[in-house]
Amino acid sequence: MIDVYTANTPNGIKVPIALEELGLPYRLVRIDLSANQQKQPEFLHINPNGRIPAIVDSDGPDGEPLNVFESGAILWYLGEKFHGLLPLDPRERVSAMEYCFFQVGGVGPMFGQAGWFMRQSSPIPLAVQRYQDESRRLTAVLEARLQVQPWLAGRSYSIADIMNYGWLRQLNYAGVDAANYPAVEDWLARISARPAVIRALAKLAN
Amino acid sequence: MIDVYTANTPNGIKVPIALEELGLPYRLVRIDLSANQQKQPEFLHINPNGRIPAIVDSDGPDGEPLNVFESGAILWYLGEKFHGLLPLDPRERVSAMEYCFFQVGGVGPMFGQAGWFMRQSSPIPLAVQRYQDESRRLTAVLEARLQVQPWLAGRSYSIADIMNYGWLRQLNYAGVDAANYPAVEDWLARISARPAVIRALAKLAN
Repeated sequence: MIDVYTANTPNGIKVPIALEELGLPYRLVRIDLSANQQKQPEFLHINPNGRIPAIVDSDGPDGEPLNVFESGAILWYLGEKFHGLLPLDPRERVSAMEYCFFQVGGVGPMFGQAGWFMRQSSPIPLAVQRYQDESRRLTAVLEARLQVQPWLAGRSYSIADIMNYGWLRQLNYAGVDAANYPAVEDWLARISARPAVIRALAKLAN
Repeated sequence: MIDVYTANTPNGIKVPIALEELGLPYRLVRIDLSANQQKQPEFLHINPNGRIPAIVDSDGPDGEPLNVFESGAILWYLGEKFHGLLPLDPRERVSAMEYCFFQVGGVGPMFGQAGWFMRQSSPIPLAVQRYQDESRRLTAVLEARLQVQPWLAGRSYSIADIMNYGWLRQLNYAGVDAANYPAVEDWLARISARPAVIRALAKLAN
């Protein structure tokens, strides 16, 4: 059994979606971010960085439980272990990893900063501009990719799509207008319509 | 042959270090960031995100050249292809990926923002504080890990160490005082003394 410590956030939805796509049983353990539960000792034992998501796989490599943190590492681990969501084609496999790291290093932090500064009571135009501009630039990189490939890795739906979907489905959070990115909009709609995604989001919303 | 498009920056030193550690021949192709060379069409063909580093491996999976961007994806690709810098122990392998993503999603963007806001002509205390605090918190997470393990993955030096070293060796850039993190300082000294690291940094400095 896999326990998923998470919340209904851009990073928090990734692991339930991946597990639904892989058809694996799992248990949702909700972390109350408003109560700072992710900074409590019980959770820091699972993720010393005090961030969601994290998992405990009761059946680790040696049969003992294994904790995994960082959504990118979790999705890579699940993909490797259960032979899914990582393309078999070696070039597409590399692309999947490229767009996972692209999300983690670019989309996540930049969208996150844009949203944070947009919601401060005393606005700081320099910061809002900096992060909105970068969020739009990053979205344009994805738009260009999705103009020529159905999925971020290429022909295969993969962990790269799930990683980026978590953030891209709420483009307006970062002040980005989805209407300017038609291939991204189409890709978002295709992911949102997947039964596994619908199931995961419904469980998280309850 | 592997062509490495890079510059002498925290992200830019990672790939030459990894290639030196793996004992592989490579050609350095310097990208002039001050001239925005990373945003020119020739480079965007290799990395559509317009960031260094990127590589072209003339001997890709099918014998044709393969472009790879994102330092995390490049180091993972090199580690998988050349069977090095990725621990053989499955638990340590997972830890290596955890601390790679930790660097890409946390250390890189937060140190980067701290350094940028610290160097603005009109200081914005809210932003400087936000990013310095987060940089210190992230460094403390690494400190706790290195208090109990010699390397970030555990007993094996890995891509996780190289990824984080790029940023941690210049803690003062983000306003972090290295003296408060003795295990990090010791780890930095051990990495800096490695012949492969010395060779890579010397080539980049020339």
